[in-house]
Amino acid sequence: MARRKKKAFPHKAILGIEALSVDDVRYIIDTARNLRSVFKRRRIKKTPALQGRTVLNLFLEPSTRTRVSFELAEKRLSADIINIAAASSAIVKGESIFDTGRTLLAMSPDLIVIRHKMGGSPHFLHKHLEIPVINAGDGINQHPTQALLDLLSILDRIDTVEGKTITIVGDIKHSRVARSNVLLLKKMGAKVRLCGPPTLLQPEYATLGGEIFYDLKQAVEGAHVVMMLRVQLERMKMGYFPTTNEYRRLYCFTAKHLKLARKNALVMHPGPMNRWVEIEPEVADSENSLILDQVANGISIRMALLYLLLGEKG
Amino acid sequence: MARRKKKAFPHKAILGIEALSVDDVRYIIDTARNLRSVFKRRRIKKTPALQGRTVLNLFLEPSTRTRVSFELAEKRLSADIINIAAASSAIVKGESIFDTGRTLLAMSPDLIVIRHKMGGSPHFLHKHLEIPVINAGDGINQHPTQALLDLLSILDRIDTVEGKTITIVGDIKHSRVARSNVLLLKKMGAKVRLCGPPTLLQPEYATLGGEIFYDLKQAVEGAHVVMMLRVQLERMKMGYFPTTNEYRRLYCFTAKHLKLARKNALVMHPGPMNRWVEIEPEVADSENSLILDQVANGISIRMALLYLLLGEKG
Amino acid sequence: MARRKKKAFPHKAILGIEALSVDDVRYIIDTARNLRSVFKRRRIKKTPALQGRTVLNLFLEPSTRTRVSFELAEKRLSADIINIAAASSAIVKGESIFDTGRTLLAMSPDLIVIRHKMGGSPHFLHKHLEIPVINAGDGINQHPTQALLDLLSILDRIDTVEGKTITIVGDIKHSRVARSNVLLLKKMGAKVRLCGPPTLLQPEYATLGGEIFYDLKQAVEGAHVVMMLRVQLERMKMGYFPTTNEYRRLYCFTAKHLKLARKNALVMHPGPMNRWVEIEPEVADSENSLILDQVANGISIRMALLYLLLGEKG
Repeated sequence: MARRKKKAFPHKAILGIEALSVDDVRYIIDTARNLRSVFKRRRIKKTPALQGRTVLNLFLEPSTRTRVSFELAEKRLSADIINIAAASSAIVKGESIFDTGRTLLAMSPDLIVIRHKMGGSPHFLHKHLEIPVINAGDGINQHPTQALLDLLSILDRIDTVEGKTITIVGDIKHSRVARSNVLLLKKMGAKVRLCGPPTLLQPEYATLGGEIFYDLKQAVEGAHVVMMLRVQLERMKMGYFPTTNEYRRLYCFTAKHLKLARKNALVMHPGPMNRWVEIEPEVADSENSLILDQVANGISIRMALLYLLLGEKG
Repeated sequence: MARRKKKAFPHKAILGIEALSVDDVRYIIDTARNLRSVFKRRRIKKTPALQGRTVLNLFLEPSTRTRVSFELAEKRLSADIINIAAASSAIVKGESIFDTGRTLLAMSPDLIVIRHKMGGSPHFLHKHLEIPVINAGDGINQHPTQALLDLLSILDRIDTVEGKTITIVGDIKHSRVARSNVLLLKKMGAKVRLCGPPTLLQPEYATLGGEIFYDLKQAVEGAHVVMMLRVQLERMKMGYFPTTNEYRRLYCFTAKHLKLARKNALVMHPGPMNRWVEIEPEVADSENSLILDQVANGISIRMALLYLLLGEKG
Repeated sequence: MARRKKKAFPHKAILGIEALSVDDVRYIIDTARNLRSVFKRRRIKKTPALQGRTVLNLFLEPSTRTRVSFELAEKRLSADIINIAAASSAIVKGESIFDTGRTLLAMSPDLIVIRHKMGGSPHFLHKHLEIPVINAGDGINQHPTQALLDLLSILDRIDTVEGKTITIVGDIKHSRVARSNVLLLKKMGAKVRLCGPPTLLQPEYATLGGEIFYDLKQAVEGAHVVMMLRVQLERMKMGYFPTTNEYRRLYCFTAKHLKLARKNALVMHPGPMNRWVEIEPEVADSENSLILDQVANGISIRMALLYLLLGEKG
């Protein structure tokens, strides 16, 4: 039986979307749904699946949402947790990521969840330490658990993304969320549109697999799903866009835009939202919005991945 | 039986003192004492009462004492704990408390303990999220668990506060501890005196229910209990009082003052103390002092409240 | 049986090396080895030895390595953990260590692990609070758990340190690691050599029990073990040594130096390493290196001490 399961999920790390097959993705989604339904029936939100296993949360970039979501997933699976946060990262002071990794490994955790400002650091850790790793966001590279939870949230409302039009709007250039989502949605057969100011969406992003739009109205027309990205207001000072007002005027998703999309189009945002900058409250709080589903599904997806990487090996 | 207990404690949140009836207060005190006596007899300081329930500690104002006290209470009841502290509050960056609250709720914790610099934020969370909330201090508004632990500490030494004179000394204006204590002590029938410099104790504070004094000697004369508040030294720069020395000369509680109070008068301080500023070591360390009882009772009161809000619903 | 064990380990605190007898040290090492071998055989890295006991980690100086190592040890023994870190030390704001200690004690933890910039603070806490205390580093005074884990790492490779030559190189003056190691190694019969720039190694350090060297080649000649200390680069500005390059030229341990030592000489470093400053990668990553063993053994030693202080009293 262990053999069958191992076949079902052959990975030892979740570093990015590329390595996952369509079947892998379906298996992750199914596992997340199973765990979710088990927990919905129970008052005691806890299983002993990862009891006695130690998960190291290495968050070297500030994060609350993703860290808390992983922590909740780990606690529900009864894992032991060690948190190392940016603020207390003396461990890396004057130390290469290689030495830090080897030091952590000598403490024999069973899995490392890593968020790091440098793209590729989860891959580096996994390659050199031979330990299960989950990428919780690496620089502007990828954020695979976000893309998976986004997909689960969409699939809770529509049967499939195959052939569906999904528009991603905002700072595509710096967004690991966008990158992972494009890769995953294309893999699952969706048509992806990318929309944003030209400074944040160069024509070469088309190579990611999406169609490029600079006009929001055109981009959302007929879309089944519209996914807004968070505007990093600090980018403004770096010259990527002139003022918040300018951004809002051109790229804030409003009720008017929603009408241009398909009937019952879904609206998403990874949070935290800048209401009135990238999205109007009327839309964010509408029945079309998946925003809170995304948060809740984050825990289910992360439980599924932790379980698939660690819990089945017994 | 569950029904009887629900009747006994009808609340779904501890936001302030007003909502609690005299019977509620007695029930909380009794529950705290029961839990305390159970734990005193045991080497293993742990019950499974909240096993599998998740408590979210949202401390958006720095705090160690209160946070640690809540954490210990939660651990003794076997709850799972998620800590979100000021330092890591990226979750609220550019987000309204409403969005933060909804995000947290989507993670389905069973109860939120919140400390926030804005008065009323616990009420807001409870109202909009329909989830049990405990106020761990909201701005200059209230700190109900502190008032309850203070009451328990007093009642461990004297049978009742009814008809007793209790003097609260210090920065009444900015003190949520004072506010919750006045409300609770008046409710339980005590005579409350408030004492402090006129800049920190305007005449309108009499409406809280206490008698106003500007002279420490008069204020403590014949008192059964004297409760000192912590001086926030940073207020000095804001012009509320001229120098530490000036404050000390007029409002530091000394052995001489203690002699003016009743025989065996009780001395209290919520901590951390500025020795020699608001209280003399000779008094703070005397047999009259309840200061360490207050710390220990903090855990018992918080266990009781968590238990009453979460543990009985099974 | 409890009696026999109590005899076997008579201590109530680990404050420094002096109080430990040779038998105590052997007993600690044996206990650490036993725990290590139990855990090596198990997939579930957890025993219920300290279930329901609360360990307070009071890290008032920044630390990740040591804190994480203690936390892992505590979690493997199933203790409840309260972390108080420098960043959140409002508890000590305006408070003496005496008041902080009493406050913490009123919360009735079962043991305090303390790191503090003031030498002697663990002793102070233990004396006044009558509670088990483990010194996790106190100023430039001692770091006994580091010395014990270093000894365990050495003894995993050679049978005994008796009569062996062990060279400690670096900033002896400010190193609690050096101090605890000299005391422990001398106690166990080793010959200790100390080496460093004259500004960081005054002749009076000979009274610690080591022979003084200012020349690295001479110091490592014929040594069985060479232990490098971390250079605190901020000392450079304080005038203790002129430049990193100057330090490296004189005191960086290289492959050439290793050849001067005994065949199969062991190389150690408490981490984090400044590669190329105090040690060459070729040496740090060689088969002679115990550096990762030191990290792994840290958890075993700390589990042993926690167990001996708390777990046997039942």
